Order: sequence, then C-alpha cells, then structure tokens
Amino acid sequence: MNNQIKVAIVGYGNLGRGVELSISKNPDMSLVAVFSRRDPQSVTTINTPVYSINNILEFKDKIDVLILCGGSKDDLPIQGPQFAEHFNVVDSYDNHAEIPQYFASVDKVASKNKKVGMISIGWDPGMFSINRLFGEALLPDGDTYTFWGKGLSQGHSDAIRRVEGVKAGVQYTIPSTSAIEKVRSGSRPTLTTKEKHARECFVVLKDGADAKKVENEIKTMPNYFEPYDTTVNFISQEEFDKNHNTMPHGGFVIRSGISSTGVNQVIEYSLKLDSNPEFTASVLVAYARATYRLAQKGDFGAKTAFDVAPNLLSPKTSLELITEIL
Amino acid sequence: MNNQIKVAIVGYGNLGRGVELSISKNPDMSLVAVFSRRDPQSVTTINTPVYSINNILEFKDKIDVLILCGGSKDDLPIQGPQFAEHFNVVDSYDNHAEIPQYFASVDKVASKNKKVGMISIGWDPGMFSINRLFGEALLPDGDTYTFWGKGLSQGHSDAIRRVEGVKAGVQYTIPSTSAIEKVRSGSRPTLTTKEKHARECFVVLKDGADAKKVENEIKTMPNYFEPYDTTVNFISQEEFDKNHNTMPHGGFVIRSGISSTGVNQVIEYSLKLDSNPEFTASVLVAYARATYRLAQKGDFGAKTAFDVAPNLLSPKTSLELITEIL
Repeated sequence: MNNQIKVAIVGYGNLGRGVELSISKNPDMSLVAVFSRRDPQSVTTINTPVYSINNILEFKDKIDVLILCGGSKDDLPIQGPQFAEHFNVVDSYDNHAEIPQYFASVDKVASKNKKVGMISIGWDPGMFSINRLFGEALLPDGDTYTFWGKGLSQGHSDAIRRVEGVKAGVQYTIPSTSAIEKVRSGSRPTLTTKEKHARECFVVLKDGADAKKVENEIKTMPNYFEPYDTTVNFISQEEFDKNHNTMPHGGFVIRSGISSTGVNQVIEYSLKLDSNPEFTASVLVAYARATYRLAQKGDFGAKTAFDVAPNLLSPKTSLELITEIL
Repeated sequence: MNNQIKVAIVGYGNLGRGVELSISKNPDMSLVAVFSRRDPQSVTTINTPVYSINNILEFKDKIDVLILCGGSKDDLPIQGPQFAEHFNVVDSYDNHAEIPQYFASVDKVASKNKKVGMISIGWDPGMFSINRLFGEALLPDGDTYTFWGKGLSQGHSDAIRRVEGVKAGVQYTIPSTSAIEKVRSGSRPTLTTKEKHARECFVVLKDGADAKKVENEIKTMPNYFEPYDTTVNFISQEEFDKNHNTMPHGGFVIRSGISSTGVNQVIEYSLKLDSNPEFTASVLVAYARATYRLAQKGDFGAKTAFDVAPNLLSPKTSLELITEIL
C-alpha cells in the first residue's frame, strides 16, 4: 500500500524485535528499516533490512516515524534529542524520576524542527499512567494503587546471580493477593511498595554450593530482598531452561474512591503479559500511528500518552469507531 | 474562585443529583444552576438553585458547560441539538444503535454555532468504549469481550413487576464467572451475551400469590429470562427495602490477543460501582472539564470520548501530570 505509514526501528534487541512482530499485525504500516550500531551483517531480523545507524540520514524522506528501541539509561537520553531533529520519534523512556528533564530535552529539538517526539510509551509509563490519570480525574476523592507483577525483574535477577554458589537465577515480583483484595474492597488501605509485593526466586546452584547459605544470603540482601516476603526455590538447570526463559509481566492499577459519603466506586486496570517486551512494542506501534497523525496535523513537540486522544491510535475512521465500538 | 468552570444541569433525577455531588468534589468547577421542566419550587436539590428550563437562555453568558441529565429515549434526541445551539453540552446518550445519527444531529448544530457537543459519556458508552478501542489498537490480533454486572437492570426489573402476584422485584445481571475465567486464560472462546451473563431476581410476593407459578412465569419469559440461567429468590418486603434500594453496577472489558504466535497478552478493565448514576455523573463532570477546554481551543462540533486526550480530563497541568503520575 502506498498510503502505509512508513516506520523504522533504531536498536534491535528484544524490544526492536517486538516492534517488527507488531508491525506485521498492522496492515496500515510498513517497516522500512532497522538501524543498528552493530555491523548490519551481524544483525538477524525476521525479514527487515538492516542498515548502519551512521547512514540513517539518507532515509530522512523515506520514514514517517522512527521507533527508538534503546535503553533508558544510556541510549535514549542521547538518541531522543538527536533523532527528533530529523524524524518523528517514539520511545519507551521509563526512568520515571528523570522524565520531566527528558521531556524538555526532546521538546526543545522537536518543536524547533517541526517534529513530534512521543516519549515514555509502553505500559508503565504508558497505559498504567493513563489509568492513573483517568482514576483521579473520575474519582477525585480516592486513592490510586499500582501493583506490578507477576513479572520478571531484571535488576533482582542480576542481584541473585551475583551471590556466590549461584549458577543461574531469576526473580519474579508477585503482587500480594491480600493487599489487592484489601484495595478491591474499597477500604483504601495505606500500603507501601513492600507490603504490596512479594519476591519469588528460582535458583540453579553450582556444584557443591550450600543451598542453606545461598538462600540466607538472598533473603537477607538489603533493599533487594530483606524487606520483602521472599521465597527461594532451587531447581535443576533443565527446569530452569524449560520454564524460566520468557519475560512475563503485568500488574494492576486500581482507583478506589467515593462519589458521595459511603458510596464506593472501584476502577481496575490490569495486564497479564506473556511477553513484556512484545507488549511494550505493541503499545509503541499504536502510538507511532498517533505520532504520524499528530505530525500530519502540525501538532509538533514532545508528547506523552496523556496528550493522545484514543481515536489517534486506531486505524479505523471516526465513523467506524462510533458505529462499531462506542 | 473566579476562574472556576461554570456548570449547569438540565434535568434533576438520579443522574442530575450525581452531577451535583460530583461537582462538589472538583474545586475547579462551580455549579451555577439546575434547570427543570418541573415547577422549580417542587425540585429539592442539595444546595443548588433551581430554575425553569424555559428561562435557560437568560443564563447564556453565565454557563461554560451544560450537562444534560435527561433520558436517551425521549429527552436527549431533542435536547442535545436544541441546547447545543446556545451552550457547550455534555450528555450520556446511550442508545448504541442510534449514536451515529445522534452524533450527526448534535454535530450540525454545534459546529454551526461554535459550540462543543460531547455525547455518549459515561461508562458504557464511555470508559468501556475507550478500553475497547485501546484493546484493539494495542492488540490487533485479538478478541474483545464486554461483560456487564453485577448490576441492576431497570428493564428486567420492570418485566418482573409486571408478573401477576409480584408486589416488588429487582433483577441483577451477573457476569458468568466461568466465562470470565475462560476469557482471562487467553483461550479466546466464542461467547454469546447469553453465555456471558446470568440473571438473579429478588421478588416480594403479594398476599396469597403462588410462588411456584410466579417463579415459572419469570423463568420462562421469552427474551428477558428464558434464554438465561435465571434464579428467583423470594424475600420479605422488609429485606427488599433494606438490601435492594441501591443501584450497583459494573462490568469488565477484556481484550485477549497475541503479539506473536503463542504469546498471549490480556488487558482487563473493570468497574465495581456502588452507584451506577453517581459514577456516570462523575464521568460526565470530568468530560465537562474537557468540553470547556476544547471550546477554549476552538475545537468545536460533536465529540465522543474517543476524541478526548486524557490530559484534558485532569485539573492538573501537563507538568504536574508528567511529574506526579506518568
């Protein structure tokens, strides 16, 4: 189709691969290229041509939206402003504390160059943020609760693997069932992050390692595990390879409030994801559509999910949406 | 506050009263007036002055947004276009099949008179619609399931009360737990509305009425009850008055899809409402804020929840939203 939205990816890890998969499910979009810092010959995509990031400006007129799939720590703070000079960009910048500064740095370049810079897209920040906003706008007299999990935590898995005697290990963050039930009941409890979550570890020991010692070292690790209800399960390498090779995640945003005295209203949004990167990628792709449309309308500058009307995300026309799903 | 958004209500039933309650929880808004077709002396609000609907044009310059709280069958098809000539309006028009025509009739008048006509706001249509849109935009390879309940159904309660021997009765629509579990599992079952819901009735018999006969007549009522798993409970007038005098409702929108072969992703949005009209009113008030802002921007014509960016609903500034809840 000639009127497809032409998309390209910068950075081909789990997220970039997820974007490639997602675009194949959106017939109004086509994936033009993957750009990588690595030798293009060494990058194997599903079926998209790979180019060196150094040649990206040659594609300036061939790409409607660039999806930045690098990391929030080192890649995006540089790439966001850098590429917003020449392209409409979308990214999943997720360092919550630094978002205002990042927004400003992208906004400055994007506004000046008449581009759209859509930042912090995904599920948290992203869909969860929107639901926190809806919750407090609809029920101003209320409390918002965000729970994460069940999901693989990269940072905590790394911490386990640093313990002596550990051959392989993963950690899942589990939302506390009893905490969720309390929140759902409308009782509006005060809960810390620690009270809302438990930590479950799956560990493969090195030959001769002392299981008791490893378990104790994990459970008493300050900040990471000590304050939490932590469970350590020892498993074989075989079981580890079979059952712990995916990246599930998810969570809940619950708004519990009252519309008048004694009248409880509870709104709940939840995600149960087999693959965290593939879902984040799916959100990025829908927001790439919105990014293209905002650019077409001349609504330039940095944007977040808060700035995007729902109809900009759908390939359907307004009339189709009103008729079919309103 | 002089910069408060000045709101008025047309029609003071359960919904109008809910709007009055909701505005008291939104300090950036003030409620100027309630307009009624009834004798203003006969309408008792919480603390808002009541005027005859015949005098509404005298308030043309004193009202930023008018919230229409009439019914979708007889009131709104007339009032929507009528008042959109002079005011920015918000309503909860919920006759799904007629929405395209209603949209067109409001759009014509609102566009011509540079007003905003925000239609079909509430939770279904409204928040559920937005979640259906998000679901299919984020997971195009998937299915959407809407469940309603547990909630009081006015139409089915009326049908019970028409059965001979029934003194008082209510009907609750109950979403089927097994159907919800199937959907949550990611198996994407094919389910009819009938398979997704059960019907629970609470009935007070007239003196001397035959319980068996009443139960049979209810359970075999075509369309209303016969196709459903229906339960009839007989209770005393005292219990009826005590436990069945509120209007709870709620439901679920679940999107189950795959991002790639075998990778399930499930999005769920749910509401558990002690009061259906008060929650619908809370949504109307948040969208009244958005309506005012769209009018300020000169973005006139008919709108639905699909056209409203989330940040228009919140009293917070963009920077506050980014800093606090993104």
